[in-house]
Amino acid sequence: MNAASRMKIDTWREMIDRRLGHWIDKTDPESLYEPMRYAVTAGGKKLRPVLLLLFAEAVDGDAESVLDAAVAVELVHDFSLVHDDIMDHDELRRGRPTVHKHWDENTAILAGDCLLVQAFRALAAVSSPHLPLALKRFAEDIIGVCEGQAFDKSFETAEIVTLEQYDTMIRLKTGCLFGLSCELGALLVDGSPQQLKAANRYGHELGFAFQIQDDLLDLVAAQEVLGKDVGSDLKEGKKTFLLLHARENATPEIRRQLDGYLRKADLSDEDIRNVIDLFKSAGTLQATQQRVEHALDQARSALELFPASPARRVLFELIQMVAERQA
Amino acid sequence: MNAASRMKIDTWREMIDRRLGHWIDKTDPESLYEPMRYAVTAGGKKLRPVLLLLFAEAVDGDAESVLDAAVAVELVHDFSLVHDDIMDHDELRRGRPTVHKHWDENTAILAGDCLLVQAFRALAAVSSPHLPLALKRFAEDIIGVCEGQAFDKSFETAEIVTLEQYDTMIRLKTGCLFGLSCELGALLVDGSPQQLKAANRYGHELGFAFQIQDDLLDLVAAQEVLGKDVGSDLKEGKKTFLLLHARENATPEIRRQLDGYLRKADLSDEDIRNVIDLFKSAGTLQATQQRVEHALDQARSALELFPASPARRVLFELIQMVAERQA
Repeated sequence: MNAASRMKIDTWREMIDRRLGHWIDKTDPESLYEPMRYAVTAGGKKLRPVLLLLFAEAVDGDAESVLDAAVAVELVHDFSLVHDDIMDHDELRRGRPTVHKHWDENTAILAGDCLLVQAFRALAAVSSPHLPLALKRFAEDIIGVCEGQAFDKSFETAEIVTLEQYDTMIRLKTGCLFGLSCELGALLVDGSPQQLKAANRYGHELGFAFQIQDDLLDLVAAQEVLGKDVGSDLKEGKKTFLLLHARENATPEIRRQLDGYLRKADLSDEDIRNVIDLFKSAGTLQATQQRVEHALDQARSALELFPASPARRVLFELIQMVAERQA
Repeated sequence: MNAASRMKIDTWREMIDRRLGHWIDKTDPESLYEPMRYAVTAGGKKLRPVLLLLFAEAVDGDAESVLDAAVAVELVHDFSLVHDDIMDHDELRRGRPTVHKHWDENTAILAGDCLLVQAFRALAAVSSPHLPLALKRFAEDIIGVCEGQAFDKSFETAEIVTLEQYDTMIRLKTGCLFGLSCELGALLVDGSPQQLKAANRYGHELGFAFQIQDDLLDLVAAQEVLGKDVGSDLKEGKKTFLLLHARENATPEIRRQLDGYLRKADLSDEDIRNVIDLFKSAGTLQATQQRVEHALDQARSALELFPASPARRVLFELIQMVAERQA
């Protein structure tokens, strides 16, 4: 990414942070506002709000006029992390104890609820004739995020999960909010119906690619770049895109060997290397990489509906960054 | 309440129930939509949505045009019950196991989240030029409800809670949503600023009176009418309006006696009778009754800003019902 693009994003991130602070500036009751502030000031890439601002600018609109909408999508993301961490019993988030570990579950439930409501409040503060439609789309896609989380939780105990079901889950849990963010940016500054659709497509496919790539990198990234064990998903028994693909596409013999490893309680590093080889034999690594590239191609072609601009340039560069990501 | 008023309310309750069903008509993922449906079909008086419709009609508007807003406030109420029941470890709600007991806490967290989002979605479906302001007010007052719950939870472990703090908590936790419901009904059909304020006042004071009266009836109602033990709040160690009033207004000697009872692990029926006598000596029963009556007077005078109509008549009758309630 070139220096001008990076500077634009960094400036916006600071604006988003300041504005997030504005929406959570109360102090009483402390048991509510402290954990809310904790959740929103934990860092994070602020990718969703930045995408929203980029699309507002790409439609030739004034990005700063939709800053509260950008804050709104970030608040939804923060809400979902706080509640998902309770449900997943996760103890760390962005290098710090999760809200329910730092305080308790009740506090995290209520703080998450309030982040969600503040998201709607922030969006309702945007001045745009398209606000009613924006709110409708906002609510619809947050429902999608919740549906995705429900599917994800149900997969943990499901006997069989198909690749198609996994695909649907990722598209809901991750794709929805990315797509929504981009669409809202275009919608609120009067983008055309075709541009709204294209913006949503861009975000949806970028988010989907990023998530599937996560599954892939967990196996093929260099350990020192990844910052965690290679194959940690497999070791934790997670149903990933790769595992489901291999089980559906491997020969019976390879599937038999694969299931043998999956039944093992503790997978050694050698086991992981063997599973990777089995994935290769089933064509899984290649198919996953293709799936990522296909999604990124879709995102790229969605940008054709927007005139050339510095914002569009950044949107292209973001695709490239995902394509080249190593961990 | 006269027969015509009752019939109007019953008809609306059925409409609200049908429309609630419309907003939760999906089936997949079942782990999300089953508990959501369970939560909204548990009965309940539907008082908040009925108030919303009554105020729309009282402003001389078309009540049915704001049906989705009525559904929205009921969904907020249902959301808060599902999450509050988790936080309060309550096992029964409206005579059935609570959502987190019937399923589990994760399911209840997610179902509650989704009820809250559906509430916004339902409100966003109302066709009114005042929708942006309605959404702003809606979000603001749901924040109020969350703040009220946070105060309520913090009181459980607080050494000292003042009557003023308790008052604030009740006004947030109960008054907000009642006030909001009435205000939205008036707002969406183009009520005047004075009418919106009056509608909010009516709902807020009615809800406040109802809640304080609950504390009072727990002590003074006849057991067979109350359907539970007299003094159950005291037995459970709850900080109620009466208890806080007595502790602030009793003579040192009466407070000393009172604190003696409060330290006891199991209060007998005779203990409860003695505490009631102490409350009487502190002027607490009378002061509480006056507080209820004052709130109902405020609600009554708020109705002066609306022209005479069948809807306004029902609103007067509802005040009378609360005033005369025995349990």
